[in-house]
Formats: sequence, structure tokens, C-alpha cells
Amino acid sequence: METIYFDNAATSWPKPDAVLAAMENYFRFVGASPGRSGHRLSIEAGRGVFETRNALVSLFGAKDPLRIVFTKNATEALNIVIFGLIQPGDHVIVSSMEHNSVMRPLRAATAALEADLTVIPCNPFGHLDPEDVRRAIRKNTRIVFLTHASNVTGTIMPVAEVGRICREHDVLFCVDAAQSAGAVPIDVEAMNIDLLAFTGHKSLLGPQGTGGLYARKGIDARMRPLMMGGTGSRSEHELQPEFMPDKYESGTLNTIGLIGMGAGVREICSIGIEKIRQRELELTAAFMEGASGISGVTVYGDPDPNGRVPVVSFNIDGMRASDVGLQLDDANGIMCRPGLHCAPSAHRTLGTAPHGTVRFSFGYFNTREQIDTALNAIEALSFSSRRKSSCPA
Amino acid sequence: METIYFDNAATSWPKPDAVLAAMENYFRFVGASPGRSGHRLSIEAGRGVFETRNALVSLFGAKDPLRIVFTKNATEALNIVIFGLIQPGDHVIVSSMEHNSVMRPLRAATAALEADLTVIPCNPFGHLDPEDVRRAIRKNTRIVFLTHASNVTGTIMPVAEVGRICREHDVLFCVDAAQSAGAVPIDVEAMNIDLLAFTGHKSLLGPQGTGGLYARKGIDARMRPLMMGGTGSRSEHELQPEFMPDKYESGTLNTIGLIGMGAGVREICSIGIEKIRQRELELTAAFMEGASGISGVTVYGDPDPNGRVPVVSFNIDGMRASDVGLQLDDANGIMCRPGLHCAPSAHRTLGTAPHGTVRFSFGYFNTREQIDTALNAIEALSFSSRRKSSCPA
Repeated sequence: METIYFDNAATSWPKPDAVLAAMENYFRFVGASPGRSGHRLSIEAGRGVFETRNALVSLFGAKDPLRIVFTKNATEALNIVIFGLIQPGDHVIVSSMEHNSVMRPLRAATAALEADLTVIPCNPFGHLDPEDVRRAIRKNTRIVFLTHASNVTGTIMPVAEVGRICREHDVLFCVDAAQSAGAVPIDVEAMNIDLLAFTGHKSLLGPQGTGGLYARKGIDARMRPLMMGGTGSRSEHELQPEFMPDKYESGTLNTIGLIGMGAGVREICSIGIEKIRQRELELTAAFMEGASGISGVTVYGDPDPNGRVPVVSFNIDGMRASDVGLQLDDANGIMCRPGLHCAPSAHRTLGTAPHGTVRFSFGYFNTREQIDTALNAIEALSFSSRRKSSCPA
Repeated sequence: METIYFDNAATSWPKPDAVLAAMENYFRFVGASPGRSGHRLSIEAGRGVFETRNALVSLFGAKDPLRIVFTKNATEALNIVIFGLIQPGDHVIVSSMEHNSVMRPLRAATAALEADLTVIPCNPFGHLDPEDVRRAIRKNTRIVFLTHASNVTGTIMPVAEVGRICREHDVLFCVDAAQSAGAVPIDVEAMNIDLLAFTGHKSLLGPQGTGGLYARKGIDARMRPLMMGGTGSRSEHELQPEFMPDKYESGTLNTIGLIGMGAGVREICSIGIEKIRQRELELTAAFMEGASGISGVTVYGDPDPNGRVPVVSFNIDGMRASDVGLQLDDANGIMCRPGLHCAPSAHRTLGTAPHGTVRFSFGYFNTREQIDTALNAIEALSFSSRRKSSCPA
């Protein structure tokens, strides 16, 4: 049985061969720690990491590679912002479609700092009205957090519009790009994004253990680091350096992972993000059209595939999402993610709490044939579920 | 020219082939995110990560694999402890041989919390007298931090003795095992270690981007997490779970790296840590004996190689450490680390601040021939330095 991997929103797979090749080359022939020693292997490792910074600023429309901070995942990047910027008595705005990587640290930070938190409700498609953000802004609003694309429905949020509103009101704007970086174009300048948290192992096609934070110039002066330690710089001081990116990059970096992520980003640039977007849109549209036509199947979120990254949540009448996931895996080799997807607020918005949905998330390497196989499997499951419910017990 | 890699205290290299093989297998055939979905690839990924937890508890003499928290490096593990446990008004004890991964967060945390910090001076060999720790303990002493082995001189600290003293006084004991885990035996139970911070990419032979924290049962109940986010558990709640290890493992783990680290640890167990220790001791002893016999060369730290992990710092009269490092690289292909090694307090203890030392750090894959080549190179450098200084300008 062929394995059909529809769990790309958890982590993309397969990754391009170039990613493994870059990691293997580092493993075999470089190996050293960047920025720590001065020998040629250390310099070569540093060059590899710097090339990843360069590839990322190209992709995100930023200019200075030193504005990129490397973290272990998007969660760490978001925690740096949340625990580093919010002050006692601040007001913070967030949408109702956020992931727990935003909501958990934000609930804790705002409670500890006696800061106010406004959660802006989205409609049952997961849409946010940017004017709701404008109306929610107060004198003491420090920052707005917004996911670029929901990890539950794929809904692409109006980031550019919210960015403009934040800039007009001199409020910081932090975008969670965990589901969008590498899947849709991002331009931090044009979108007025002050802080962009991203992960390396989803649509950037890199390995797990990588991610980062873009921080617009000037913000680091007022943002405390989440952790401190050796940076290979200013070693004579027992105080954390204040310059970028060292201020937020303590301890040895995940060099092999970052070099892999760089290869992933270069692969994206070489294919062209528009081509990737087009292919993933076609797969998403084909699945949504097919699934919506199956009796007993509900597809959540924006009915227009153009309004999504390649993520689709659905349910089958009369079946728990977890049972659907299990059966698709057992009988059809389809790997997906049922449940709440670490985003309870998004599921409450969609009306799918507490059992959640079945989530399919596609990638550039999926095929139309895999979509058709999945649609047949869902149709069979739905048919059997309806037959069961119509039979007398 | 052969590359002679003597920078294993920065990161070990080469790594065993088994590490790359395990990573490649995951990359090609598993790929999924552990603990997030329920499909077979996700379960397989979870199994790989769990096997690494198991390998580590075996190596460290712990029992429960769920007492291991995975972090991106030892620095993150130390920051979890420092920012998670210290309370306002506490007293904290540390040695003068610590790395900036302890000193930088500790200086910041104690200043912010108005906690007192006692730095216990070590002697110029880097030795700590355990009785000095006992004398420093006060009623409000919360925790003692001690490096297991100095990253500058390799000096092995009296961890078991300090552990006993801490337990007697009901003071927490946190050991920084960045330089010792995988190089010398560690038994957290016998040594009364409450918290053990380790890195995966040094003597554990794993890739960069890995590390962790062992936390004795009960400590997690009073230790705040450093970051929060999705854990794949209790997804319906916007509060961080309180159980181990999820409380401290937010966001996607570095699965590929952790699987590589597991292969590294299993390689250590398969060779036998005593055999590794013996070989590294022989290399260290041979280098120390040779270097001490070269006129104009000063070797720092414990003169007995048995009192060290395979790390040796030295200087050549009349030459800056950085120049020695550069010349060894250029002329002899020797990769080492000159400077302050992110440990200014240790260099002040040794009397080698502000220029630092040249550090050679050996690994299991180094050879006696490489040591001899290096000794000849150092002798030539020292000879030429003495000739220069004796010539009239």
C-alpha cells in the first residue's frame, strides 16, 4: 500500500534531496561550530549559517541578514516576542484563530503582567475583519499577534491590511508564519510586519529543530532575550550582548539543521514560490471540490481555495475525527491529523470543539492521484457511516 | 595536508557513521512529527525520540525516561533552571569556573530578582574545594550550579562531594554536563544531582541542535517553563500542561537531531564509556607530557591528566593565543580554539584573561600521530617565538 502523506502542516515530507545532501556534506566535511573558533572549518560552518540568513531575507523581502534570529522552532520565536516585549499594564490584541504557540504564552504573560488581552472573534469561516482590529486598538495597545494562515482551516488572514492599521496606530505587529512561510509570498516591508515568527520544517522544506524570528530594526533595543549564554561574541563579559542576532542566539546553533533549512529555501526559490503556490492550490481545490460533493462530509473554512494555504479540515457525519484518521491510515495508508491541532480557540470559532476535525494538509510533492484515492476512501467511509446510522440497532 | 580536528569541546567531529545513518533513515522513511498526529509515521517518529530518552537515562543512571526534557542545547536547559527556579531574595552558589551559559543568565536573573550570588573561587588549577560550598550555604540558599568539567582546562569538578553537601543541606544541585556527558561516567542518583544540563553534540556524538535537562522527580512541580506553546497534549487548554516532559517541550521537537543523538549515545554504550575515557586519557596525557616539556610553553589546569576531560589549554611565551591558533591552522591543518572560550571567570581564575589560551580538545577519533604532529608544530612555533624575542629589534 502506497503511503499518502497529507500531514504537511505538522511537518512537510518528503523533503527535497538537496536538503539531505547539504546536511550530509556538513556532517562529513565541515562539522565544526560556527562563530566559536577561528579555524577554517568553523568559518565554513559560519558561512553555511550565514547563507541561510541570506536566503531567508530574500524570501521575506527583508534587507539585512542580521535581522534574522535563529530559534529551534516558531514557538521559541513567538515566546521571545511575548515574554520580551509585553510590559505590565499593556493591552494586546490577537485573533480567535491562533495556535497554542501564541495563546499559551500569551495567556500566561498577560496574567503575570496584569496586561489586557483582546481576542477578536473571527467568523465561522475563520475570517478576520481588519476593521475589528482597528476598533480594538487602545492607547495602551502594545502589539497585535496574527497568524498568517490558520493551521486548522488554512484560512489566509488579511496580514497586509492589519499591518497597515498597526503602522497607522504605531502598534507593533507580529505575524505567526508557521503555516505560510514558503507556501505564499511574504514581504515584511510591504506588509508592515515588525516581527515574523517562522518554522523551518513545514513549507520551508527544512528539517525539524529549525525556525526563526525576523525583527525589524530598532525592535531588538526594547525586546528582552528569552535566554542568555555563550554567543562566541564579547566573551569577556558576563552580560548578554545587545546586538543582533547574538542577543537572542545563545548556545551552539543547530548548524546542520540550519544548513538543511537553507537548502530548502534555495529549493523554493529555484522552483519559484508562485509555481509551488499554483500546484498546492490545484491540489487543494481538487480535494475541496471532491469532498464537498460527498454526502455527509462537511468541509470547514473558506469555501474558496484561493483564500487558503493547502490545509483543509473536514468531518464525516456520525464519525469521530479520530476514528476517521485511524481508518484512513489503516485501510488506505493516508497520514493526516485528526483532533484539535493545538488550536482550541480556532475550533471554537469553527464550531468544531471539542472533538475537532480531520485535517488534510498538502505539499508540493503530493499528486492528483493521491487526492483521488483519498476522496474515494472518504466516500466509502461516509457511505458506511450513513448506512450504520440508518440501520436499526 | 591532513585536517587535525582538536576542537571537540566546541563540537565533536567526526561523528560516528551510525549517527548520519539514523538521521538519513528518519529523513527518507519516517519524516513525521512525533506526538502530534496518530498515524503510523508519527508514531514511528515518537518511538525514535522515546528511544533517545531511554538511551540517556541508561547513560545517566536515571530510571524514568520522562524525566528527560529535550532542549536545543545545554544553554536552554540551564536557562530553564535559572529562570524557572530562582525566587526573589534567594541565595545562589556557583564556582568561578563556569561558562557564560551559566554566568550570563545567572547575573541577569539574580539582578532582576534581587537574589544574592556567591561565586566560589577555585585555585589556579581550576580546583574547587567542596568544603567552600558547605561554608557558603546560607538559610536562603536555593541552588548550587557547578560545571562537571571546565571547558577551558578540562578540570573535573568534585560533583559527587558537592552533591552530598547539597543534599545534606536540602539545597538543589544543578550540574552543567556540557563537557562531561559521554566523556566520563555520570550517575545522577549516586552523585545526588537534581538537575543535569547536557548537550547532544559534544561527547554524546550527536548533531548540533540537541541537548536536554534531566530533572529529578518533584522538581518540575516548582520550576516554571521558559517557553510555552503547543505540546500535542491537552490541546483543548490554553494553559501549559503541568506534566513531564511536555511542560518544558513546547513546539515541534528536533526529531531528526534527537534520533541522531540517540544513535550517538548508543554508539557510546556499544564502545563502552570506560574504553572511550581510557583512549581520550591516553591522548590527553601524551599531549600534556609533550607540551609541558617544550621550552616556553605553559599548560594550564590540573597537571594530572586523570583529573580532566580531554581538554588542555596552553600558551606559548611571546605569542598571542589567537596568533598561535591561526598559525596552527595555516601551517599544520590543526583546528583548535584560541581565546576566552565564553568563560571569562575561568580565565580570571587561571590568570589567563584577557587574551585567553589556546585550547586543544580531543575526541575518541583522534590519534597518537595527530598529537605528535601537533607537538612538533608547537615546538617549532615556540622556538621561533623565542628566537624573535631574543633578537635585537
